[in-house]
Amino acid sequence: MATMKAAVFVSPGKIALRDKPVPEIGPLDALIRITTTTICGTDVHILKGEYPVAAGLTVGHEPVGIIEKLGSEVHGFKVGQRVIAGAITPSGHSNACLCGIGAQDGPDSPHGFKVAGGWKFGNTIDGSQAEFLRVPDAMANLSPIPDHLSDEQVLMCPDIMSTGFSGAERGNIKIGDTVVIFALGPIGLSAVAGAKLLGATKIIGVDSIPDRLNIARALGADHVINFKTHDPVQEILKLTDGRGVDVAIEALGVQQTFESSLRVLRPGGTLSSLGVYSSDLRLPLDAFGAGLGDFTIVSTLCPGGKERMRRLMEAVGSGRADLSNLVTHRFKLSEIEEAYDLFANQRDGVIKVAITP
Amino acid sequence: MATMKAAVFVSPGKIALRDKPVPEIGPLDALIRITTTTICGTDVHILKGEYPVAAGLTVGHEPVGIIEKLGSEVHGFKVGQRVIAGAITPSGHSNACLCGIGAQDGPDSPHGFKVAGGWKFGNTIDGSQAEFLRVPDAMANLSPIPDHLSDEQVLMCPDIMSTGFSGAERGNIKIGDTVVIFALGPIGLSAVAGAKLLGATKIIGVDSIPDRLNIARALGADHVINFKTHDPVQEILKLTDGRGVDVAIEALGVQQTFESSLRVLRPGGTLSSLGVYSSDLRLPLDAFGAGLGDFTIVSTLCPGGKERMRRLMEAVGSGRADLSNLVTHRFKLSEIEEAYDLFANQRDGVIKVAITP
Amino acid sequence: MATMKAAVFVSPGKIALRDKPVPEIGPLDALIRITTTTICGTDVHILKGEYPVAAGLTVGHEPVGIIEKLGSEVHGFKVGQRVIAGAITPSGHSNACLCGIGAQDGPDSPHGFKVAGGWKFGNTIDGSQAEFLRVPDAMANLSPIPDHLSDEQVLMCPDIMSTGFSGAERGNIKIGDTVVIFALGPIGLSAVAGAKLLGATKIIGVDSIPDRLNIARALGADHVINFKTHDPVQEILKLTDGRGVDVAIEALGVQQTFESSLRVLRPGGTLSSLGVYSSDLRLPLDAFGAGLGDFTIVSTLCPGGKERMRRLMEAVGSGRADLSNLVTHRFKLSEIEEAYDLFANQRDGVIKVAITP
Amino acid sequence: MATMKAAVFVSPGKIALRDKPVPEIGPLDALIRITTTTICGTDVHILKGEYPVAAGLTVGHEPVGIIEKLGSEVHGFKVGQRVIAGAITPSGHSNACLCGIGAQDGPDSPHGFKVAGGWKFGNTIDGSQAEFLRVPDAMANLSPIPDHLSDEQVLMCPDIMSTGFSGAERGNIKIGDTVVIFALGPIGLSAVAGAKLLGATKIIGVDSIPDRLNIARALGADHVINFKTHDPVQEILKLTDGRGVDVAIEALGVQQTFESSLRVLRPGGTLSSLGVYSSDLRLPLDAFGAGLGDFTIVSTLCPGGKERMRRLMEAVGSGRADLSNLVTHRFKLSEIEEAYDLFANQRDGVIKVAITP
Repeated sequence: MATMKAAVFVSPGKIALRDKPVPEIGPLDALIRITTTTICGTDVHILKGEYPVAAGLTVGHEPVGIIEKLGSEVHGFKVGQRVIAGAITPSGHSNACLCGIGAQDGPDSPHGFKVAGGWKFGNTIDGSQAEFLRVPDAMANLSPIPDHLSDEQVLMCPDIMSTGFSGAERGNIKIGDTVVIFALGPIGLSAVAGAKLLGATKIIGVDSIPDRLNIARALGADHVINFKTHDPVQEILKLTDGRGVDVAIEALGVQQTFESSLRVLRPGGTLSSLGVYSSDLRLPLDAFGAGLGDFTIVSTLCPGGKERMRRLMEAVGSGRADLSNLVTHRFKLSEIEEAYDLFANQRDGVIKVAITP
Repeated sequence: MATMKAAVFVSPGKIALRDKPVPEIGPLDALIRITTTTICGTDVHILKGEYPVAAGLTVGHEPVGIIEKLGSEVHGFKVGQRVIAGAITPSGHSNACLCGIGAQDGPDSPHGFKVAGGWKFGNTIDGSQAEFLRVPDAMANLSPIPDHLSDEQVLMCPDIMSTGFSGAERGNIKIGDTVVIFALGPIGLSAVAGAKLLGATKIIGVDSIPDRLNIARALGADHVINFKTHDPVQEILKLTDGRGVDVAIEALGVQQTFESSLRVLRPGGTLSSLGVYSSDLRLPLDAFGAGLGDFTIVSTLCPGGKERMRRLMEAVGSGRADLSNLVTHRFKLSEIEEAYDLFANQRDGVIKVAITP
Repeated sequence: MATMKAAVFVSPGKIALRDKPVPEIGPLDALIRITTTTICGTDVHILKGEYPVAAGLTVGHEPVGIIEKLGSEVHGFKVGQRVIAGAITPSGHSNACLCGIGAQDGPDSPHGFKVAGGWKFGNTIDGSQAEFLRVPDAMANLSPIPDHLSDEQVLMCPDIMSTGFSGAERGNIKIGDTVVIFALGPIGLSAVAGAKLLGATKIIGVDSIPDRLNIARALGADHVINFKTHDPVQEILKLTDGRGVDVAIEALGVQQTFESSLRVLRPGGTLSSLGVYSSDLRLPLDAFGAGLGDFTIVSTLCPGGKERMRRLMEAVGSGRADLSNLVTHRFKLSEIEEAYDLFANQRDGVIKVAITP
Repeated sequence: MATMKAAVFVSPGKIALRDKPVPEIGPLDALIRITTTTICGTDVHILKGEYPVAAGLTVGHEPVGIIEKLGSEVHGFKVGQRVIAGAITPSGHSNACLCGIGAQDGPDSPHGFKVAGGWKFGNTIDGSQAEFLRVPDAMANLSPIPDHLSDEQVLMCPDIMSTGFSGAERGNIKIGDTVVIFALGPIGLSAVAGAKLLGATKIIGVDSIPDRLNIARALGADHVINFKTHDPVQEILKLTDGRGVDVAIEALGVQQTFESSLRVLRPGGTLSSLGVYSSDLRLPLDAFGAGLGDFTIVSTLCPGGKERMRRLMEAVGSGRADLSNLVTHRFKLSEIEEAYDLFANQRDGVIKVAITP
């Protein structure tokens, strides 16, 4: 049996490179030879044991690669095509998918629901930080990469760009909106780009790392606030003549950014939450307007599926969104433990890393 | 100067009938002679001092009456017409109104926003529990009552029906949805009727008062749960084969109903909050799916304006919704202190009272 | 090789019962033993040669039956289950499906698009007027029938109810809307039920057949207009005090009903077209308001897929919609030529027929 | 009585500068001293007698100016403020306004509806091509100009930008959409900018005038097609690999562009019509997919009101949209007949003119 290198979750605190069998595929699957992948903040949650996955699971959910093999029932693709698949891989045929929320794909039978059933790679099945990846429901999930785009140009599509843009989309941004993004990591920066792409005319980014504030400006932020030197709530009210913002995007996953997002919303505004939280949240009575504020709060999991990926690659290819400069560091798959160390500890100004087997 | 009787807020714990001058009106106002009005749960919050209003303010925000006088710039109406006005009276010309959220009407100048600016009657200006009422921005707010409808038939339109239906509307109910309503007071019962009117095919009502559970059934609930004898979360999962509900409507304003609403939501579902809260709310990590559930949480303040009232009276007149049997008790305006005593203490199975000057 | 009876298109003017092999199924398919099916107006278009299909094709697209066999890759169902499938059978994995318009399912490759790619049964593959039916993409399309519902109770779900309701849904009906339905055949009657289910408070039906006008009233029409005795446009303006309707649903497919739909729309209203047309349409300059009317015109093809079917069966099971009385005549499959003769010529007050193998 | 110069419609073929009294204002009005205005294609329809207005009416509906006087009931503004008002001036208090379609503002009484009731300037009341302008319902319609924006920078907001953007907005453009704009006059060019602002990733402009094709490129078109040298339908299918476009914007008002828009739509796509038509339109059977294409056709009249204007000026001020270079020629009000001659005959590459009293 052929073997390959794969980054596996061993135990809390340890993700390590191991030899594993190259995945077998079924009739509806595809086997992808990974050419580039990356590490996500969620992988760091897994590393730290904050988000539980099975020991031995291959981690990673952001694949760029080449079709190595196709299941017998997969039509419309051919071996050798360059493709990406989304971090979320909807089956296409579940009730959730047929309702248009593929990220919540899952068993239709009555076992009680669970959230995020569409997130499979590196969560419930082996992931992309490996030499090969099995893609389930390949016809719904493989998306060919246009020839003129490099691996790194599309590397943000499977998760970062899809998630960040969805924060803007679910905020239902309209022309003339003022939008704030709290936390300018890869997701938040992508949300800045998404807000710009959707017609927000005043975009405010909040973080404390000068490099990130600068990238936010380059991606479309009209104003940036360093929360170490200025109170963001006060600054935002000042920047909006006291009106507050139409849409606030939370891109970190902690009480403070969530609460500040709520505090700066105009009546009738939308809080669009992208964070992965690790504790209960509080809606303070005043910030929530005692329930009388006509507020909307939405949480969104990264949309997946080949059509989403096609559209995001169109955004890249047309020059409308360029997130490739978020890749600050590059590693071989063999160096992935080192990459995790750098990324998890946010050293050396790292934003995203590119991993190549 | 002509005087009239009016129920005024005196101090926490005391609303009393007093003589006050009949209101003067400006060019854009109308003066309404009240023929029927009612008491709202919010008035009880005011009575108890939980929601602060100015001492001496006339309370009440649910007017049915006859046009007594029209301001010089009010066109399209005539003295003697029977009309209602919504609890919320949007100006029509604020930025919020022009954005479609009249309930958040308010000064457009940059003083910092506040929520619920469209709620004026019995909050920031004198209200409807009186012989006469000044209606501001009359052209946007007076809605003629069709001849064949009685005062009591339209008495629920200004607030109860508008709020309850908005809970269903903002939940974005679709044909085939399962909807639960937590708490079956007047608002919750109206939300049951609204959910039915919008195509929900499985409606579940939760309360502990048998009479209310029965009325809920009559208004469209397919199932009712007495939370004193059954755990609503478990029962709802059973009734939905473990799927959870598409939409949960919170109609009370406390942590328990809010939290239970969240716990029974399917991934991608909507929590539609109608409650007026008096303390912070908590989003438990598991119930919120750690932010990965594609949930939507909306809070809604009663929509107002004459077009809304026209539509609700159409719903009444066509027989689509009949909430007149929510009126369980009737009082003269001179007996309003007694009415408050009954209503605030929820005695004698009271649901809503009708007050006639 | 096992054979079965099937109604096949022979040539324009002739649909005849023939022996054909029982369908073979692939890994993603299911084989259904048909227990009840019906004839649609579209089948009559096929019979007359107005809508071309291949000679020898089994016609019919409204299946109720029992799972006889499942493809090797089909999970979540079992042989012997009673199921329906929609008239439209989306694959779940095409770009169109992933955009949420499964009715426009089709090859994703760049051959040039065509409309209605999701309509396969009795159009591009063998249909349901037979003893057995192959259902493609079974996991996306099989929907189990609740035990307490009879075949005839769910027989309208695959097409009539799904199409009629979609006319109301795509009209974006709101509480308080006035809605007119032009032509009260099975689709139009179903649209009446759909408009009621979605909160329209004044529903007007237009036809010339007294029985259909009566059924429309029973399904929710507040007013009916016999166009042989009254001018519908004038009557509708009278019924709406000159305002016009919010939504007009066209359910026939000819210029006159389409044009009248447009003429009675209020500015900003929606024309929801369900008809299958056989000639060009004209938008008269005045009716179209010279382009200044903020009108919306939508055409909709029957939504399919198992989740849609599940929801429609919920509407039936909850008593929200009962279209079973549209079945006015019953035939054996062996009598199908006679059934076509009756149905195509609209004799004996026929609305829908039930065909049982 | 003070007099002023005003361009008035005299008779078909003749718009001339005349002396008229400075307008009187009522309690809800404002008087604006015009500092800059412009001529619209619609004014040319009026000039030619194709769109009838009363003889003696002052024409023009695109005002930039300074508040000269305020009605007694107008609050929130002050004399001397620089303001614009939209071409469309919703009252804020009609049923149409309260439904969110202010462009269809009009009498609520049952006289039978008419379209475009919100368009008053230069249509039903005196317009802006004059030294002074009465603005009705001033509180809903005056929008202060930020100090840092010049008259010419905001001159496109009242109509061109609002209309063009609305074509993109009503097309419901999503990230990754392909959008074509047929006809690149001022409205079409503005629609190009709007499509870009809303996230379209492939924008195709169609016209025959090279200068306009170049401006379209500068405003965001990825591809342009000269219909004199290439068949737009064929080119668009080629550019989209046969898929067709998601949204087609018609910006001229003739059968050919309307029909081509329909022909290039993918199933499920939207035709967004901005044209003012002067004859019946035809929906060819094949282009309309016989009614089976899940198409949406929307027509939109320029949105107005102060909040819309505020948002458009935000788009200008933030640099998101710059249409000021559409102004190719400048005239004094005293030269307006000359300006009409140039503009109506499309001489000298004129796109828009600026007129200053």
